Amino acid sequence: MLAPRNAARRISERARGSTLDFVGSHILSVEQFERTDIDDLFAVADAMLPYADRQRITRVLEGAILTNMFFEPSTRTRVSFGSAFNLLGGDVRETTGMRASSLAKGESLYDTARVLSGYSDVIVMRHPVEGAVAEFAAASRVPVLNAGDGANEHPSQALLDLYTVRRELADRGHAIDGLRIAVIGDLKHGRAVHSLLKLLVLFEDVSVHLVSPPGLEAPPDTTAALRERGHAVEVFHTLADGIGHVDILYVTRTQEERFASQAEADHYRGLFRVNQAIYTEHCEPNTVIMHPLPRDSRAQAQELDDDLIANPNLAIFRQTDNGVVVRMALFAMVLDVAAQVHERAQPVTWYTARRTPPSGRG
Amino acid sequence: MLAPRNAARRISERARGSTLDFVGSHILSVEQFERTDIDDLFAVADAMLPYADRQRITRVLEGAILTNMFFEPSTRTRVSFGSAFNLLGGDVRETTGMRASSLAKGESLYDTARVLSGYSDVIVMRHPVEGAVAEFAAASRVPVLNAGDGANEHPSQALLDLYTVRRELADRGHAIDGLRIAVIGDLKHGRAVHSLLKLLVLFEDVSVHLVSPPGLEAPPDTTAALRERGHAVEVFHTLADGIGHVDILYVTRTQEERFASQAEADHYRGLFRVNQAIYTEHCEPNTVIMHPLPRDSRAQAQELDDDLIANPNLAIFRQTDNGVVVRMALFAMVLDVAAQVHERAQPVTWYTARRTPPSGRG
Amino acid sequence: MLAPRNAARRISERARGSTLDFVGSHILSVEQFERTDIDDLFAVADAMLPYADRQRITRVLEGAILTNMFFEPSTRTRVSFGSAFNLLGGDVRETTGMRASSLAKGESLYDTARVLSGYSDVIVMRHPVEGAVAEFAAASRVPVLNAGDGANEHPSQALLDLYTVRRELADRGHAIDGLRIAVIGDLKHGRAVHSLLKLLVLFEDVSVHLVSPPGLEAPPDTTAALRERGHAVEVFHTLADGIGHVDILYVTRTQEERFASQAEADHYRGLFRVNQAIYTEHCEPNTVIMHPLPRDSRAQAQELDDDLIANPNLAIFRQTDNGVVVRMALFAMVLDVAAQVHERAQPVTWYTARRTPPSGRG
Repeated sequence: MLAPRNAARRISERARGSTLDFVGSHILSVEQFERTDIDDLFAVADAMLPYADRQRITRVLEGAILTNMFFEPSTRTRVSFGSAFNLLGGDVRETTGMRASSLAKGESLYDTARVLSGYSDVIVMRHPVEGAVAEFAAASRVPVLNAGDGANEHPSQALLDLYTVRRELADRGHAIDGLRIAVIGDLKHGRAVHSLLKLLVLFEDVSVHLVSPPGLEAPPDTTAALRERGHAVEVFHTLADGIGHVDILYVTRTQEERFASQAEADHYRGLFRVNQAIYTEHCEPNTVIMHPLPRDSRAQAQELDDDLIANPNLAIFRQTDNGVVVRMALFAMVLDVAAQVHERAQPVTWYTARRTPPSGRG
Repeated sequence: MLAPRNAARRISERARGSTLDFVGSHILSVEQFERTDIDDLFAVADAMLPYADRQRITRVLEGAILTNMFFEPSTRTRVSFGSAFNLLGGDVRETTGMRASSLAKGESLYDTARVLSGYSDVIVMRHPVEGAVAEFAAASRVPVLNAGDGANEHPSQALLDLYTVRRELADRGHAIDGLRIAVIGDLKHGRAVHSLLKLLVLFEDVSVHLVSPPGLEAPPDTTAALRERGHAVEVFHTLADGIGHVDILYVTRTQEERFASQAEADHYRGLFRVNQAIYTEHCEPNTVIMHPLPRDSRAQAQELDDDLIANPNLAIFRQTDNGVVVRMALFAMVLDVAAQVHERAQPVTWYTARRTPPSGRG
Repeated sequence: MLAPRNAARRISERARGSTLDFVGSHILSVEQFERTDIDDLFAVADAMLPYADRQRITRVLEGAILTNMFFEPSTRTRVSFGSAFNLLGGDVRETTGMRASSLAKGESLYDTARVLSGYSDVIVMRHPVEGAVAEFAAASRVPVLNAGDGANEHPSQALLDLYTVRRELADRGHAIDGLRIAVIGDLKHGRAVHSLLKLLVLFEDVSVHLVSPPGLEAPPDTTAALRERGHAVEVFHTLADGIGHVDILYVTRTQEERFASQAEADHYRGLFRVNQAIYTEHCEPNTVIMHPLPRDSRAQAQELDDDLIANPNLAIFRQTDNGVVVRMALFAMVLDVAAQVHERAQPVTWYTARRTPPSGRG
């Protein structure tokens, strides 16, 4: 695990199963993960739940420093990683925006990585340029976690998506093997979908519905591995045709910022709107609804209509909550403290009740 | 308390006094507070003084996370809340500026609140739009403290102002009941003044001088409740007339950013300048001088002249210091740790002496 | 020490040696330091190495708050100070960019300092205007460390440079006394070089080669003290002439932002490029290569060529690592915890291995 894919394949021939391979590794791509790695990671994520839920606290990373380097804005991913590190007891230093950077003075990513990795124990990085995080990681002296490099990869998003699939299916008595999923929307640009499809290759007997407007289909290479491994992949161009007979709807935002022009993006906005009536008419009961968020809630978009807020199968906020435990697990495994977390647990003594917000925003 | 005003009024008929009502509540408006709530909060604030003064430390919120969400710039309020949370042992995650937000991708405040409240134990939020913090709070699963929503509310400022009034008067042997105060300057736009006037309604026998240039008078609704409850309210249009026979001068900045044009704002700038000569001529001895800060120190403004720096009654920096203890108290009460703070106190072992800066800046 | 230079000179006549003079002091200028202060500081910095190297942790500043105030962008200096404070156990609050400041509303530095110093135990400040940090410090109630005020001073950079000189020479069996150093590049604007030259005055028998293109020579006042104290100072206008017969090359970036026009800056860019061939031809074996970073790595600049990455004498990343220990030492001495650090040490239980990045970046 955590080696280029061909190496990983060879390694997977051998007896494996230990989580030790994560220790000290960069997490740059979902392609680093074999199925046993997923199993290991998710077992640790499960163990993080009591801490993320504030049932108890742990200070196992007390004294450790995460540097959050975001060369592109991201509130949710940045705060999620930072909170996950805090929940393990560590401190967080941050830098946001190119403006604040020495890169403006002509500094190479190599130098930035050599310097910044001298200050911290682990680095989380987002960068607008594809491959930039890997280039940075190559020069870093500490583990680097890719929090998104342009249209390329955002592995912690794919992992939290898959973890959500697993938990939602478990609540319904299923495993990921045998999963039937419809991925919906802008499948051409959706980085999150592409990565999720790559991870699903690792499982057995998966059935995928690709549901998009004509012109926004998933590029062939994103599903080639699924087909090769014998998974079922079908293409649909209407919601009505594509969203039946699945366990999960995975809806995505039109990636407007990746289109050549705003006019082209506008052409697609709001084409596929999932609402309660469509859901009731076409979906099996208890079909799970996921979305990587943010979703476009402007009137002309409404990827997921407000009336779905009351639907208990809408899993989008459970999904984002899962981001914290998956990121805690990544930190715990990369920094090799997963086994110590429980040993150093303490009770929580402040108010921790979570309120239930209103269904919808009327 | 901590319910809409009418409900609060009904509740206040009953026997009350416990601080438990704060626990888990959003703090959005000064209108949530009844007099006993004020008393409770200020008692906790008093208990926070040894920690804010670095006589000892407490780690009662160790493991808890505050998310500071500032959609509008604010150094002092943001750092004050963050430091207050650190002084209780908690960690702080931050996001500043709309630019860094998913809102640019069409995300609703509802979604942002659902997501962000999954990462933290309490949220402090400033937003330029009136009502936005309440809208956010309605969807948040954790308590939200309003750090300013446009021209509307900034309750922690009003509370620290009132706490300062109380401490300054106590030093002079008085209670808030019986207070005589002159509020001076831009009373039309001054959010801080409006909120302070609302809180003063809760006390007995208050006398208020409204001192402003013609055109910047306090809107009638900001003083209606005071008049209804039988407090004395008088209007003045010159400093000389308005600043005598009071215990406190509360001077405010012209809120230039709220005027239709800079020219209109310039028209008012520097009209009411309080300096030592005016103070000596018109004020009673030991009249306290307050200001919510920042004050405009440019030559043409000089709301409070440099020569007042040597006046021991200038309370403006004691006032801002009080912000830390009042915010500590809000966190401690909302997260229900007020009673535990002393139990988990530790000695401070680093240099903590505070120097006395020069009087004035030559 | 830590008094204006003339006072410091008088003090140095007396028996000295205690580090207590640092306690509670502002660190604004290298001119505050006498030789014994340097010795004291570097002894503490040496003691910080096991903590910066994650061999153990200390929580000696647990509960203390640093406010990082950066009115000008700086990733490395800001994160280095913040990480140093975290490594001692303290929390960090930050404010970056003028935009986020009340100064836009006409607030004076005096008021900002009075207010912000009420929130924290120590302040690190960078400001684009020469003298602004000293003006701020004069009004601050807590110690202020200058992290750069325009073209004026950046004392922690000079101290980490000197600490690097000391460590690199120690590895080669030498002390700073007797040092032979070539300072290279834009010596007219290089704040780091000017400060380093001031510190070298405190040592014995130093020989300095000033190597710059015509027009970018060091201003006479930057070397006057060196000459007065009998150190050797020679001027060179070519690399070949200047870089032989020295222990250390200290290369600097052309400070493009300080030129009247970009065209004028472009005229000088890339004039002096140090590469392995030049080094081999002109330098003594094991000559150390330093640079304050960031270096301009664009093709037309290349102050230090990529082929030097494999040269073990390239000390630029050891230099930036030293920044953390020197800043830890400054905090520990100013806040008077240097003697307690070891008493409160704990083992580190997470992954701390540092990888060795590739030599160069292909």
